[in-house]
Amino acid sequence: MNKAIKWGVIGCGNIAQKFVKDLQYVNNSQLYAIASTNKERREFFSDIYNPKKVYKTYESLVQDENVDIVYVATTHNFHYKNTLLCLEANKPVLCEKPICINAKELKHLIGAAKKRKVFLMEALWTRFLPAVKHLITEIENGIIGKPKLIKADFGIMKPPTKGSRFYEKKLGAGALLDLGVYTINFSNFIFGKSPISVSGFAKLTTQNVDEYSAYNLKYESGQIAQLLSSVSFKTPHTAKIYGEKGEIVVHDFYHPKRYTVFFFNGKKITIDKPFPGFGYQYEAVEAQECLLKQKTESTIFSLNDSLKVLTIMDTLRKEWGITYPNDL
Amino acid sequence: MNKAIKWGVIGCGNIAQKFVKDLQYVNNSQLYAIASTNKERREFFSDIYNPKKVYKTYESLVQDENVDIVYVATTHNFHYKNTLLCLEANKPVLCEKPICINAKELKHLIGAAKKRKVFLMEALWTRFLPAVKHLITEIENGIIGKPKLIKADFGIMKPPTKGSRFYEKKLGAGALLDLGVYTINFSNFIFGKSPISVSGFAKLTTQNVDEYSAYNLKYESGQIAQLLSSVSFKTPHTAKIYGEKGEIVVHDFYHPKRYTVFFFNGKKITIDKPFPGFGYQYEAVEAQECLLKQKTESTIFSLNDSLKVLTIMDTLRKEWGITYPNDL
Repeated sequence: MNKAIKWGVIGCGNIAQKFVKDLQYVNNSQLYAIASTNKERREFFSDIYNPKKVYKTYESLVQDENVDIVYVATTHNFHYKNTLLCLEANKPVLCEKPICINAKELKHLIGAAKKRKVFLMEALWTRFLPAVKHLITEIENGIIGKPKLIKADFGIMKPPTKGSRFYEKKLGAGALLDLGVYTINFSNFIFGKSPISVSGFAKLTTQNVDEYSAYNLKYESGQIAQLLSSVSFKTPHTAKIYGEKGEIVVHDFYHPKRYTVFFFNGKKITIDKPFPGFGYQYEAVEAQECLLKQKTESTIFSLNDSLKVLTIMDTLRKEWGITYPNDL
Repeated sequence: MNKAIKWGVIGCGNIAQKFVKDLQYVNNSQLYAIASTNKERREFFSDIYNPKKVYKTYESLVQDENVDIVYVATTHNFHYKNTLLCLEANKPVLCEKPICINAKELKHLIGAAKKRKVFLMEALWTRFLPAVKHLITEIENGIIGKPKLIKADFGIMKPPTKGSRFYEKKLGAGALLDLGVYTINFSNFIFGKSPISVSGFAKLTTQNVDEYSAYNLKYESGQIAQLLSSVSFKTPHTAKIYGEKGEIVVHDFYHPKRYTVFFFNGKKITIDKPFPGFGYQYEAVEAQECLLKQKTESTIFSLNDSLKVLTIMDTLRKEWGITYPNDL
């Protein structure tokens, strides 16, 4: 019997709570420690989830030799700093998406991880969900022939309140970083590669971050992704994949439990891949498996995959004139 | 009582048949003459629709002094030549969409029409449909506040057979000219202006025309249209308009009979504006009203409106490297 992997969690917001709840579905896992600089959140989190250790600083958590892996659940703008802290203490890291604000930051992290041979992965949970894994395999097996065009919309409606991470530039605001990370990754998953060209238009806020944007990715041999992200209006969260033999509809494409294939010959099949909880358990399982196998990165979702997406977002932001304090 | 307007029809294909059928819903209209260089089509059309005159050449039709207005229903590549023939014979023209292959051709036609003070209009029937007229008025009245983003998809699946006007470059093939004329016009209708920037990606066929493409238009103050056209896969023909106060869904946006407004406060209204026939009668009514008022162009859908759309398509085609014989 394997020894339980002891998780440390940095940041105690909503996403941390969801992740910790989903740990119940992960064999040989244990919520061991949490760290938050915010007293209220720390106590709230601690009372509910009952970790062995509660730290007031991230530094103390990463110094705890019993912590096997750290889940970084702070806001985007802190990912680089927090993850680097972990890596420099030789702690493996699963870092929330987007793993960094820009490709440059991620290159530094990859360097730090490789230097110490420490595991690092972006918490792009979508890639590990059963329906998505199944879908990618089926696409590779040619279920609809060559995919021609992908559409994916991810619009949510958040009020532009002061301090909102969706609107505050210093928190890494904007729809692209927060939601575009899903649309772009999904497109790369399906086409199985990175685009050769990207372009689009954005509506900027008064803080000069993207309130909403429409952008296209062009892949080799003319494959196209038509993507949208928004924090000021809600869209269905649907992806559609048009191929040579049919169309695939994926509702809630960033965390689907099913997908439907509509073949041009009239046949239709629905694949159901339900899961309990929120679905964060699958990325945790992958991280644990990598640790057990002493792998420093996932082969299913690699650091290079993360880097490609950040590079695309860098290109789009440059086109739109969006910079972050970290970029300067 | 007004004298019936005598229509002459050049080209006897599917669209001509639909138009002629819809003339039954137009007061004071009469199918007077048809012209086709194709014997079989001419006789087939003549037997069914029973025009007073049947001509073997377009030249003879435009010389018939009883013809009040000509409906040009040939394929795109002939629109310029056929319309010019009519205008030079001082015949008013309603010309199928796209009215020309490029903006340069249209500028010549506008010059020819203005010189002779002869009526000319592109048969952009969508603009005159009751649901669309109502929708545009409601948008102007602020039903959803300022529109932020429009999505419109127009994908059809046509086999790439030899001689197909969707694939043969010399016939003005490609999804943009044929279907993009609807998506782009719809976006201009709703935003009430022309974009300040356009860009997109296209998949080209072996003949170097666009099999499918995804393109975005950017308007003043960050309004965006995210559009798609395809002749190799079918999409729902739906337009969605996201605004400050709600979302409007327009099914079959190029010939809608209803639209639905989903307000963010939970309220929902559906506007029904049914019509008999195919819906081509409304553009014919507009053309006839212009003739009776001795107007040389429509104020609802002007030649400048047509020119703006062709200019957008020229820009996109240039970006994609698509040329037509007429362009050279």
